[in-house]
Amino acid sequence: MRILIVNPNTTASMTSKAATAARAVAEPHTEILARTSKSGPVSIEGHYDGAIALPGLLAEIRDGEAAGADAAVIACFDDTGLEAARALARMPVVGLCESAVATAAMVAQRFTVVTTLERSRVLIENLTRHYGMAGRAKVRAADIPVLELEDKSSNALAKLRSEIELALHQDGAEAIVLGCAGMADLARMLQADYGVPVIDGVSAAVKQAEALVSQGLSTSKRGSYAAPLSKSYSGLVSALALPPG
Amino acid sequence: MRILIVNPNTTASMTSKAATAARAVAEPHTEILARTSKSGPVSIEGHYDGAIALPGLLAEIRDGEAAGADAAVIACFDDTGLEAARALARMPVVGLCESAVATAAMVAQRFTVVTTLERSRVLIENLTRHYGMAGRAKVRAADIPVLELEDKSSNALAKLRSEIELALHQDGAEAIVLGCAGMADLARMLQADYGVPVIDGVSAAVKQAEALVSQGLSTSKRGSYAAPLSKSYSGLVSALALPPG
Amino acid sequence: MRILIVNPNTTASMTSKAATAARAVAEPHTEILARTSKSGPVSIEGHYDGAIALPGLLAEIRDGEAAGADAAVIACFDDTGLEAARALARMPVVGLCESAVATAAMVAQRFTVVTTLERSRVLIENLTRHYGMAGRAKVRAADIPVLELEDKSSNALAKLRSEIELALHQDGAEAIVLGCAGMADLARMLQADYGVPVIDGVSAAVKQAEALVSQGLSTSKRGSYAAPLSKSYSGLVSALALPPG
Amino acid sequence: MRILIVNPNTTASMTSKAATAARAVAEPHTEILARTSKSGPVSIEGHYDGAIALPGLLAEIRDGEAAGADAAVIACFDDTGLEAARALARMPVVGLCESAVATAAMVAQRFTVVTTLERSRVLIENLTRHYGMAGRAKVRAADIPVLELEDKSSNALAKLRSEIELALHQDGAEAIVLGCAGMADLARMLQADYGVPVIDGVSAAVKQAEALVSQGLSTSKRGSYAAPLSKSYSGLVSALALPPG
Amino acid sequence: MRILIVNPNTTASMTSKAATAARAVAEPHTEILARTSKSGPVSIEGHYDGAIALPGLLAEIRDGEAAGADAAVIACFDDTGLEAARALARMPVVGLCESAVATAAMVAQRFTVVTTLERSRVLIENLTRHYGMAGRAKVRAADIPVLELEDKSSNALAKLRSEIELALHQDGAEAIVLGCAGMADLARMLQADYGVPVIDGVSAAVKQAEALVSQGLSTSKRGSYAAPLSKSYSGLVSALALPPG
Amino acid sequence: MRILIVNPNTTASMTSKAATAARAVAEPHTEILARTSKSGPVSIEGHYDGAIALPGLLAEIRDGEAAGADAAVIACFDDTGLEAARALARMPVVGLCESAVATAAMVAQRFTVVTTLERSRVLIENLTRHYGMAGRAKVRAADIPVLELEDKSSNALAKLRSEIELALHQDGAEAIVLGCAGMADLARMLQADYGVPVIDGVSAAVKQAEALVSQGLSTSKRGSYAAPLSKSYSGLVSALALPPG
Repeated sequence: MRILIVNPNTTASMTSKAATAARAVAEPHTEILARTSKSGPVSIEGHYDGAIALPGLLAEIRDGEAAGADAAVIACFDDTGLEAARALARMPVVGLCESAVATAAMVAQRFTVVTTLERSRVLIENLTRHYGMAGRAKVRAADIPVLELEDKSSNALAKLRSEIELALHQDGAEAIVLGCAGMADLARMLQADYGVPVIDGVSAAVKQAEALVSQGLSTSKRGSYAAPLSKSYSGLVSALALPPG
Repeated sequence: MRILIVNPNTTASMTSKAATAARAVAEPHTEILARTSKSGPVSIEGHYDGAIALPGLLAEIRDGEAAGADAAVIACFDDTGLEAARALARMPVVGLCESAVATAAMVAQRFTVVTTLERSRVLIENLTRHYGMAGRAKVRAADIPVLELEDKSSNALAKLRSEIELALHQDGAEAIVLGCAGMADLARMLQADYGVPVIDGVSAAVKQAEALVSQGLSTSKRGSYAAPLSKSYSGLVSALALPPG
Repeated sequence: MRILIVNPNTTASMTSKAATAARAVAEPHTEILARTSKSGPVSIEGHYDGAIALPGLLAEIRDGEAAGADAAVIACFDDTGLEAARALARMPVVGLCESAVATAAMVAQRFTVVTTLERSRVLIENLTRHYGMAGRAKVRAADIPVLELEDKSSNALAKLRSEIELALHQDGAEAIVLGCAGMADLARMLQADYGVPVIDGVSAAVKQAEALVSQGLSTSKRGSYAAPLSKSYSGLVSALALPPG
Repeated sequence: MRILIVNPNTTASMTSKAATAARAVAEPHTEILARTSKSGPVSIEGHYDGAIALPGLLAEIRDGEAAGADAAVIACFDDTGLEAARALARMPVVGLCESAVATAAMVAQRFTVVTTLERSRVLIENLTRHYGMAGRAKVRAADIPVLELEDKSSNALAKLRSEIELALHQDGAEAIVLGCAGMADLARMLQADYGVPVIDGVSAAVKQAEALVSQGLSTSKRGSYAAPLSKSYSGLVSALALPPG
Repeated sequence: MRILIVNPNTTASMTSKAATAARAVAEPHTEILARTSKSGPVSIEGHYDGAIALPGLLAEIRDGEAAGADAAVIACFDDTGLEAARALARMPVVGLCESAVATAAMVAQRFTVVTTLERSRVLIENLTRHYGMAGRAKVRAADIPVLELEDKSSNALAKLRSEIELALHQDGAEAIVLGCAGMADLARMLQADYGVPVIDGVSAAVKQAEALVSQGLSTSKRGSYAAPLSKSYSGLVSALALPPG
Repeated sequence: MRILIVNPNTTASMTSKAATAARAVAEPHTEILARTSKSGPVSIEGHYDGAIALPGLLAEIRDGEAAGADAAVIACFDDTGLEAARALARMPVVGLCESAVATAAMVAQRFTVVTTLERSRVLIENLTRHYGMAGRAKVRAADIPVLELEDKSSNALAKLRSEIELALHQDGAEAIVLGCAGMADLARMLQADYGVPVIDGVSAAVKQAEALVSQGLSTSKRGSYAAPLSKSYSGLVSALALPPG
């Protein structure tokens, strides 16, 4: 089984971290194919970055499927482009936020997502509502720029811990969801420290992707995710030659 | 006052139709600036087209604001790119679906949106939920490809009428919302024929844009719509040089 | 275009303040017709006052429409009598709370309504839910009796500022809605001071009324707002001779 | 114990029917005090009638409490004036719709309310949502003017039966709620005929009123239902001298 | 009328306390039949205890109905087994949480449930949501083991008072619901002390049971609560010989 | 990895079918341990059967964990006992309905669950709401007694097909969820026939269980699922000696 991990920002060290997290939970027979977007911002922080990342992301989805991927993971906690990628692909495509909250809901009744910046807090709160978790999930921002997570000397971890502690003591959180792909390497340590489940979105999504493939499920092509209609494209995006055929 | 109408698909005749609808309801002192996206699909039908249209759309938002627009309307009923455009701009930006359902809710307690293709039905249903209208709005698809609305010889109008009649008799609709920018020219005729309010999204959005400007309101830059952080962009989208500064 | 502003309490200075706010945002060709109810309480604070104000309010709606109004605004943030007025009138009728939250939702994803007394807080919270804003709007009471807003020597403004600051820092509010018609004169100053959109209900409602008229929309007479059936009325309200014909 | 039944329309035969239904379920020691409003419409059909009935209704609530009532029932299925009456009174006040849906929810998981006219259908649907029954209750209108229920020769009963049968077979209703005070005499017969619980709002409300009094509960005066503030009233409603000193 | 009170835990002193509370509010002609489960835990604290108590509880429901009960109350605030008991019985069966929140909602718009242990807090929060009170009810845990309520020398009352005070001052509670059957003896005292309605679930449920019987209502046997199908049972539960017939 | 499948009814052929479905999707290194409850009904159809099955189910959970299981699946689509099992166990425990709807939501935006009997329809509808899928999932009953699924000569399959076709054509379903563990053998065939994803709950749950174990997640013991407190048990359930310790 080949699982494609697409990092929709252009920072290769984040792709690498996601791939490592993915391989740590993947089955022995699963091959992790990690791709970094070739077009877009160096990090995704808020609605604008998420939008501008889409053509690059969709090109990797298309190319990855053509190269034989059986399922794809979009490695950004904002689940940017998830609906469009499902329309484009036949293979299953899963998002980090979607996978992480579905996972958290199986080990806890109430949980808190801790994300990076305030500008992403409401965005993720809206996502958790869309996924049906309005009454179960709270969202907190730890005031950490995404790329600060790549810098070991930053105090990002201290900020993250501080917000996790507030979640446990003020929100009544029974589990914690790490709300950024760049936090994938921290889940096990934090889980050990706090004694509650700590869910990393990359790991959760890889397992969901494997689960869908194992069950022989692919994205429904009836209704919302019907394949894009054949039509003309102009300008920059025409260079992407999307969709195929 | 200058209101920018951005057509996020590349079909100029739809831009022209939207501009005509906009001018029909705009105040005498409002100038309507209509722009057609230079990069993207000829029509937006479903999640994929909506995503691929974003860079072109956002470039027009940026350029339009730089050229002095006081507010912008994204002339696609899917409200594609609305959140990203608000993050990019300081001026108010409004969507067609958002404006149309807010408008319908002031003249009716229950209403039905009639859109084009089945692939857009759930997308718009999700939007109406996001806008808080889950219990008030139903959505129907009339099985009309968007560009068929540009072809006078098609039976698009007959299909649309048929679905409106089902809305009135089966849904208990008290008003009808036309769920595609390409239907902007039909609202008044259908309202006269059926004797219930028929709302066109372009008209509704232009009035909301004017209303926001008149009240001295601009997009909040606190939280969700904070201005994009300055960062590097690679690949195709770097050619757009977005965001400015 | 003639927009009727009905103040459903009997305090003329509040009518005057609302009319001033209305004229400040109205189009040059819009005539603002302000009427003060002749029957009811001097201020509306809670459910009881809102109910007892209805006959006087409805008489002004009827008389205002007969006198040629094209749309009406009920100038009380509780939206008292809004549904009844819509059933009575053919012209569009809009409420302050309804208009203000629809407006706030176009410039911010999360916002807080600051109203006067605790007894109105849950009432307005229920309204915002009814308008579909349950997940987006918080409501706070600043402990200000309505008529204190008419007294420049009171510390009403200080209380209001204090609650706005809590909204910004504790609620994560991206915009503020002023939850009383009597605060209409304060919006621009507070917006300048706090750097976030501050929405006044009277201004918002006038623009919605103009928007509906410009679009050729009137209240649906199909279903919820069908015209009152002709029937006998006894006692006090029979003196009102409502509804006409 | 003395339970006040206020009929907020001015038709004495409906008061009498409600009083009969009330006495049929009341405890032996409960005295039913039935009052007909002296000011308002002969029947309440839709938002306008409900609003215009309020001063007359509130006067009876006040006078009934002064005369020693321990609790009150507002005998109209629209629960018109319920919040205002609670603010005015210290005694508990209950509504028919509120009581009937709470009762139905204890004998069935899904039920349908059958009301009179289409104009009341959405009004009652909104009420059931406000009472938290959005997912459990459906509402149907049987196209019966209220006063037709007073006319034995009408085909009102046939229309009602037809709608109940649709509720059972199309809605999956497990119980039926009769959505008009004027149907109070029909519940037992229909229950026998259809073999499912059939709930009459008057009966349900009387039992809720007794229940509250037996438990020593009265309307909370903290927050939403705080007693009306002392203030001046002008015009017609000033003749009502409400609220008491 | 005979009302069966089933205590689903095996602690007789709690049965006795519930029976006393029941008799204090029951009508003179109502006979209270109190039964203690013969199989299960000494107290119900959380999901596991609630599940393990079911066979014992259901046996008492069956035997109580066979012995002539007209309605039953399950005397545990978790409403454990409520749906199963309704399927088993023809008589009405009511729960404490269900009855208490329906009662609170008639005297207050916002209220707080104060329960015993943190492990029950989310369980009751989920119940209040299921009963449609998501927006009206908050839930707090006072950190009191259930059996501590039976011990007069404990500081359970002080903990309870402390949480009630937080509910009034932080939640804006207009009424308090006592969230454990073992608090039934405290309601009147606390109501007197705090001046807001304080609702005890046992009292509320007894009145709902009486109300249903007085109205001639029994559990719907159409759909969700259809009688158990006749089938074989093995193992321990076969000793219960459930269901009859 | 050892995954425990507990069939909470006492019909061994259903356990066997579930184990076969489980092994078909499990990873090569996953051992499926299937256990049939020793105490309870031969099939679970509705609330009563679900309740009476709990002690037998919980005994198998306890014994299975003691025997080294790493995670458990409760093989009944009603998710009976899921919360209690999570409180009892440290290992993750997953339900069929919960897993199936989370899975369906990753390949489709709208889907329909087809279950067996009408008495289970609302039960599952309530479950899907509890899991946050109120707006995405419909539920239909095919009028098939559970054990009829074990009888190849029955017309169960024809009834199931008929309901799937209604789901596709009337509900706009984009995927189908089979709403009974006894349908596990039919998913692949139906998926091939209808060309939309068809999800079997047993398969979905096994993959979720594996996913949780691979991620090193176990049930949170903070809050809702805290381990049962040590206390006395009487009567039948005391023979189960639950919980351990």
